Amino acid sequence: MKGYGPAELSESPRFAGVPTYLRLPHVSHLDGVDVAVVGLPFDSDASVRSGARFGPKAIREGSLGLHPHYNPAQRSAVFETLSVVDFGDAPVAAGFADRSQDRMAEHLGGLHAAGVAPLGLGGDHSVLIAELRAAAQRHGALALVQFAAHAGTLDELVGERYTHGTVVRRAVEEGLIDAARSTVLGVRGGLSSPTELDDARALGLEVVAWDDLAQFGTQAIAAVVERAGGKAFLSFDIDFVDPAFAPGTRTPEVGGPSSMQALAMVRGCRGLDLVGADVVGVIPENDSTNLTGILAATVAWELLTLMACRP
Amino acid sequence: MKGYGPAELSESPRFAGVPTYLRLPHVSHLDGVDVAVVGLPFDSDASVRSGARFGPKAIREGSLGLHPHYNPAQRSAVFETLSVVDFGDAPVAAGFADRSQDRMAEHLGGLHAAGVAPLGLGGDHSVLIAELRAAAQRHGALALVQFAAHAGTLDELVGERYTHGTVVRRAVEEGLIDAARSTVLGVRGGLSSPTELDDARALGLEVVAWDDLAQFGTQAIAAVVERAGGKAFLSFDIDFVDPAFAPGTRTPEVGGPSSMQALAMVRGCRGLDLVGADVVGVIPENDSTNLTGILAATVAWELLTLMACRP
Amino acid sequence: MKGYGPAELSESPRFAGVPTYLRLPHVSHLDGVDVAVVGLPFDSDASVRSGARFGPKAIREGSLGLHPHYNPAQRSAVFETLSVVDFGDAPVAAGFADRSQDRMAEHLGGLHAAGVAPLGLGGDHSVLIAELRAAAQRHGALALVQFAAHAGTLDELVGERYTHGTVVRRAVEEGLIDAARSTVLGVRGGLSSPTELDDARALGLEVVAWDDLAQFGTQAIAAVVERAGGKAFLSFDIDFVDPAFAPGTRTPEVGGPSSMQALAMVRGCRGLDLVGADVVGVIPENDSTNLTGILAATVAWELLTLMACRP
Amino acid sequence: MKGYGPAELSESPRFAGVPTYLRLPHVSHLDGVDVAVVGLPFDSDASVRSGARFGPKAIREGSLGLHPHYNPAQRSAVFETLSVVDFGDAPVAAGFADRSQDRMAEHLGGLHAAGVAPLGLGGDHSVLIAELRAAAQRHGALALVQFAAHAGTLDELVGERYTHGTVVRRAVEEGLIDAARSTVLGVRGGLSSPTELDDARALGLEVVAWDDLAQFGTQAIAAVVERAGGKAFLSFDIDFVDPAFAPGTRTPEVGGPSSMQALAMVRGCRGLDLVGADVVGVIPENDSTNLTGILAATVAWELLTLMACRP
Amino acid sequence: MKGYGPAELSESPRFAGVPTYLRLPHVSHLDGVDVAVVGLPFDSDASVRSGARFGPKAIREGSLGLHPHYNPAQRSAVFETLSVVDFGDAPVAAGFADRSQDRMAEHLGGLHAAGVAPLGLGGDHSVLIAELRAAAQRHGALALVQFAAHAGTLDELVGERYTHGTVVRRAVEEGLIDAARSTVLGVRGGLSSPTELDDARALGLEVVAWDDLAQFGTQAIAAVVERAGGKAFLSFDIDFVDPAFAPGTRTPEVGGPSSMQALAMVRGCRGLDLVGADVVGVIPENDSTNLTGILAATVAWELLTLMACRP
Amino acid sequence: MKGYGPAELSESPRFAGVPTYLRLPHVSHLDGVDVAVVGLPFDSDASVRSGARFGPKAIREGSLGLHPHYNPAQRSAVFETLSVVDFGDAPVAAGFADRSQDRMAEHLGGLHAAGVAPLGLGGDHSVLIAELRAAAQRHGALALVQFAAHAGTLDELVGERYTHGTVVRRAVEEGLIDAARSTVLGVRGGLSSPTELDDARALGLEVVAWDDLAQFGTQAIAAVVERAGGKAFLSFDIDFVDPAFAPGTRTPEVGGPSSMQALAMVRGCRGLDLVGADVVGVIPENDSTNLTGILAATVAWELLTLMACRP
Repeated sequence: MKGYGPAELSESPRFAGVPTYLRLPHVSHLDGVDVAVVGLPFDSDASVRSGARFGPKAIREGSLGLHPHYNPAQRSAVFETLSVVDFGDAPVAAGFADRSQDRMAEHLGGLHAAGVAPLGLGGDHSVLIAELRAAAQRHGALALVQFAAHAGTLDELVGERYTHGTVVRRAVEEGLIDAARSTVLGVRGGLSSPTELDDARALGLEVVAWDDLAQFGTQAIAAVVERAGGKAFLSFDIDFVDPAFAPGTRTPEVGGPSSMQALAMVRGCRGLDLVGADVVGVIPENDSTNLTGILAATVAWELLTLMACRP
Repeated sequence: MKGYGPAELSESPRFAGVPTYLRLPHVSHLDGVDVAVVGLPFDSDASVRSGARFGPKAIREGSLGLHPHYNPAQRSAVFETLSVVDFGDAPVAAGFADRSQDRMAEHLGGLHAAGVAPLGLGGDHSVLIAELRAAAQRHGALALVQFAAHAGTLDELVGERYTHGTVVRRAVEEGLIDAARSTVLGVRGGLSSPTELDDARALGLEVVAWDDLAQFGTQAIAAVVERAGGKAFLSFDIDFVDPAFAPGTRTPEVGGPSSMQALAMVRGCRGLDLVGADVVGVIPENDSTNLTGILAATVAWELLTLMACRP
Repeated sequence: MKGYGPAELSESPRFAGVPTYLRLPHVSHLDGVDVAVVGLPFDSDASVRSGARFGPKAIREGSLGLHPHYNPAQRSAVFETLSVVDFGDAPVAAGFADRSQDRMAEHLGGLHAAGVAPLGLGGDHSVLIAELRAAAQRHGALALVQFAAHAGTLDELVGERYTHGTVVRRAVEEGLIDAARSTVLGVRGGLSSPTELDDARALGLEVVAWDDLAQFGTQAIAAVVERAGGKAFLSFDIDFVDPAFAPGTRTPEVGGPSSMQALAMVRGCRGLDLVGADVVGVIPENDSTNLTGILAATVAWELLTLMACRP
Repeated sequence: MKGYGPAELSESPRFAGVPTYLRLPHVSHLDGVDVAVVGLPFDSDASVRSGARFGPKAIREGSLGLHPHYNPAQRSAVFETLSVVDFGDAPVAAGFADRSQDRMAEHLGGLHAAGVAPLGLGGDHSVLIAELRAAAQRHGALALVQFAAHAGTLDELVGERYTHGTVVRRAVEEGLIDAARSTVLGVRGGLSSPTELDDARALGLEVVAWDDLAQFGTQAIAAVVERAGGKAFLSFDIDFVDPAFAPGTRTPEVGGPSSMQALAMVRGCRGLDLVGADVVGVIPENDSTNLTGILAATVAWELLTLMACRP
Repeated sequence: MKGYGPAELSESPRFAGVPTYLRLPHVSHLDGVDVAVVGLPFDSDASVRSGARFGPKAIREGSLGLHPHYNPAQRSAVFETLSVVDFGDAPVAAGFADRSQDRMAEHLGGLHAAGVAPLGLGGDHSVLIAELRAAAQRHGALALVQFAAHAGTLDELVGERYTHGTVVRRAVEEGLIDAARSTVLGVRGGLSSPTELDDARALGLEVVAWDDLAQFGTQAIAAVVERAGGKAFLSFDIDFVDPAFAPGTRTPEVGGPSSMQALAMVRGCRGLDLVGADVVGVIPENDSTNLTGILAATVAWELLTLMACRP
Repeated sequence: MKGYGPAELSESPRFAGVPTYLRLPHVSHLDGVDVAVVGLPFDSDASVRSGARFGPKAIREGSLGLHPHYNPAQRSAVFETLSVVDFGDAPVAAGFADRSQDRMAEHLGGLHAAGVAPLGLGGDHSVLIAELRAAAQRHGALALVQFAAHAGTLDELVGERYTHGTVVRRAVEEGLIDAARSTVLGVRGGLSSPTELDDARALGLEVVAWDDLAQFGTQAIAAVVERAGGKAFLSFDIDFVDPAFAPGTRTPEVGGPSSMQALAMVRGCRGLDLVGADVVGVIPENDSTNLTGILAATVAWELLTLMACRP
């Protein structure tokens, strides 16, 4: 192992002990660390369900059953390449969106300043603004590659401007992402208005609906990677996947990809120059088998692998 | 909006308030109404699970997360065309099948008499007899297009003649549907006897097993629409879908279609001259994430869209 | 019946239809209304669980099994005396505490202005500030009678000043309640510091710990009523009750009263001149039998009875 | 052991095998049998919840953890005195109340004819009519001792005359029970009208509300036994117990007895000349720990002990 | 029916009575029996979840909704060919792996000795060693056809040699299976080391990863049947299927086959000369809709059909 | 604070971060440590439920809502007196009881050797043997004070000698506890034989049934403390409490103490010279609100307080 990596199974079983992501060391320093997994336990969840704040807990729990040492699909012994730790959770103030975003951005900024790439575990999609502010401060405007069932490009939601439904529009407006290099993938279901997707495209973003992605899978992803050009941030909202495969999410949108399809697309992003990534939108409370946490943990591990294979 | 339609999101979030289907107005009159969504909370459920009576509640709840204003798959701004209300539930007497069917039929008959098309939310599949009696009284024998894992063409179930397992045979016998224009789609799993499906076909019905439908998808549906000819009723038992996508149902039958496949087939029914429709068989009690209610609500919305696009 | 009251059972069963509290009429006007039941679906829940925003839904659902027409313990035919409606939910913006409190206070202010007493269904205990602002604007500083496991008199919680843990202190500071006439009952469990309760008493409040209340039950309550003097507001946090009887709450505190004890104490408050009341703190998400919602609905009904018996 | 009794633990653990009540032999003959445990899986459940038909399953499952050989409270080695079997379930037709009551009555009549006392596992309280018809045919009008939160003496429920809410009135009218020797214990909560309990007393029944029973416990029970005089039937609706101790029931009524209090009262019934008994009202579907099934199984075992100690 | 088979539905509904697999007779003798369904309720579950010991119960329960008399996919009236019983569970000592394996092997040995083929219901995959010891004693080294997400060919797990993770390696070492005729299908997810699968192949086993199987489905299965040659044992770990279709399993591995794909592959095994088979790995405790038990029951029924169609 | 103690709430909410017991530091050294909280995640659970191995996780989770700094009932600022850490879990091999007990005993022996008192979080009651072996090696035979619904003094269970049902008998036989100074409190429910409790008393133990304890509460506990004399170990099986207050346990025994009664008895043990203690028997899997984990966490905190007040 290069530096920090998962615990061995020689002494005690997977279910024992205080659960960190992949049973990684839980540290509060950054020496010798390449990637820090960090929880972003904030949600406003102005929709039908609440509790994305418990997403980090569910993803950590869901990660315990994984066999992370070797990823055969990418032929990568992940932790021979990357030194990874569980850095705990960023500070937040539940119910107070503005101050929470500030605290998270400051916390993540410390990681970037130390040359450590954060892998965020959400939280609802609104945490993306904190992640991008921290990343852009160090790296400038990034290419965003977003997998999600909804575009996140509305202007307001229930009278508020900084929510999961508006976060991508805000990121463009704040200059945190370069719309010309960014793509939003997987939109499906009903729309708020006939022009919702055209409004998003008017920002400069590439928008690929799930129906199109289902048909042109591999090619579509290759185009996304090429379009991204330089430094990039990959955001994966678990609602991208069909709710049969990820029932514990905010507003489940039926008719989506299977987990097999979703994993193949994430793997297809090999080649992105990732300076950060996240998995968001996990709401574990009624997902009694934690299916969602397990899938999110697997996606996060594929994101780690992408970072290990970074060009 | 033409008349009645979903509430706007400007004031309060989706989870707030007394839940109606799609946050439609809950009215008890029929002025200016084109379609009335009506709960049919009856079940005998003579199988392994019970509680289809709670289906209407679960579907209303499941509808809260939808974005119903624009359906991009059909390019339809549904509520610009149709005025739709939530008309509450029809009266029933739990445990007393005969009197419950009478009460529901009378209630639905009032809708048809006022020129309003009912969209029924079951209840178990036995409520179909009440729906068809009410519709046929106004429109004559209808074409039935049924999506379900079981044909519903047995002669008796546990000694009773009016149950979810026998309802289609009864509808033919009572002259409520025209077998020559009707199709039963999606049958799969084990059978009670080697001749079960041939017995159904002997009634004059077209029976398409799921294995065949999986292969000939779009074409098979086009043939169903053509065969239907005139006025039609579409009945969608949620057990048509694989239980991974709809676990909260009476007797889940594994190996079925995904929700993506199911939605595509419903959309393929565009062209049917629907005077009524339903979604039945939702049993929410152990479906902790209400995946089934959400899918059923989405199917019901696609049925509304079919009505909005009615030829 | 005097004006508005629960639906009769003659036509359809309790589980049918769109659920309002006690199957009361769901209206949006205030003509002929004495008491309006109103949901306050806001939570910041800066503790271990989230989802008090779903409390109104759970309490409405839990009320469906009650037999509300006659309360034998108080010998009151409640709806012969009071005209009561379900007024839906107050507007909120999830995740944005300040603006949500403003919206709720304005909404409730409209009720008081029309001479209607609100019966609030929370929401977490932070909604009390909105309720008291609305009530005090009309009635001046009130006597607060609060049943809860925690005093709510801290100065800050996770850096914020307006939360469930600080709401009573803020209400004193804002002059909304008259500490000399107010009592906080039922405090138990560990404390943040040795002086926590003395600090609360320094505000002028009477603080009765559960251990003392358990011993001096009836007498203690009589003293509370006498101390209250004039116009009063009764706030009942469901965590007052032992979590065996109300598991669905924010930070369950074991070792508390049974529901039988709790109901007796609420009934003992007969004589209070209530201009408003609430039941808060119900978090239904993991309470699979909705035990908490049922108990909260029963407590709310006892509060209605207190209003019907108001001196 | 006298004849039939629980399996020994020498070979395999309690959770293994096909579950019968107390791991008793599952037989379909009556040779050498004193008491037959028989499931009565019928419900109409015209209230808020459904699924009492699954009560027998939950009670059998709940019985597996009991240590039934010796009852120290009654100093009775139960199965040294009684030969007991699990006789499976009586036949029913779900959704068809009338025919189901007929089938159950006939089935139970066969037991009485063979001199075997049935111990019924409900099902909702409506099954009592079948039990009493079968028992009265052999033994004449019986003394009924009923523990339940609601009296069951209404005249109609949702337009029907044979339901859980009307069953005791029907039993008096049909002459199956002798009202002068019968007692209904534990009534609590709101009432449908101010005269509901007086109407019940007008039938000749003794009605003891829970508030009174709580105060006069042991004495009240002794009076019940004395009043019963001759042959008796004990019916225990699990809703008699507070829902914290038995959440899985039809319309939970808060503020009731603990299981410790309830068991003491059942034990106090020693001396009744029981020709039959039941435990009804268990609805297991949302009771995730099967607390209700376990309590019901324990009550049923105390009933068996009462039969073993029969005078 | 040839001998023993499922109960008819003429008398009582599917949910009634003491549940056996497919409502088969529960017998303790072997006269006239071809196949005995037998529970193997042992688990060590040294991973993240526990409770495979409850698998037999969940599969029996899950089987109640099946229509087993005729299998249209194989055109087989199963019970016209085979006489099948539910033989209860084999004896085990929970927590004591070694003695449990001995007891189960002896119990199963008795079946083989009587010429009865066992159909095992697990339990975790470690029970395979007991099944193979019993079968090999009678039939010699067998061809193993295993469907599972993990190969089971590690050398040690948490310091132990006989676990679900090592059982196939042990079976080769003990000479219970003929590696040259055996195939392990469906491996996916991360690996413990880069050489894990090559190490398995070094034992002589054919290992087909899920990614390959997904592409070459039917052909791959035909090759497995041909390779098996003579007498064979088919072991189906429910984790072979994607956890969306079977969430109640030990270490769910996302990205796997749908139940439709899985059933097609099992059916493709027609032609195997099965002397035994099993379905293992069902952990029902948090699978609230018992989706996993239902799928496992269906797979077991397809295995019975394979036995009925045995060459 | 003296040394190690709970985290402050100034930065982030209780639900955030990797959960340790009371948010104590998770360390792997013993410098400056007085008490180490240590998980003992082993179960054989040869009864009806499994999963006590997840007890430590549930208790840690359940502790997050506590306010541990000041215990008003004992007037103790616990962490001003004691330095306490979360020491993670002891090593075990699931399914292999003998080797697991050895590993746990060795691990705990290291704590005693360093002068640190362990506070064990079970696991099922069988872990007591490992705890007592480790403690007795350092301190000699101890007084055992055990709160549990079952005595644990059987000779064998399902053919095994080291299980939760036999552990106290083994501890006497191995000389780990001094029966003359030891007391077993709270036995209730049915018994395996008429002599079960007399057999336990024949070992020299004091056995106090729950019925007696309920009557003589405070006095009975004072006698236990006096009888204990010198160094003692307190073991609290959560099944001591009525399952309404602690549903997540192995074999729930109804009719027991409330949590209020149980806490009072634990507090009454002030004066015991504790060299170790535990809370065992928590099985969280179906306890959806984690009521049991919260109560167990509270009991563990009262045990810490007893240690802080140690004479």
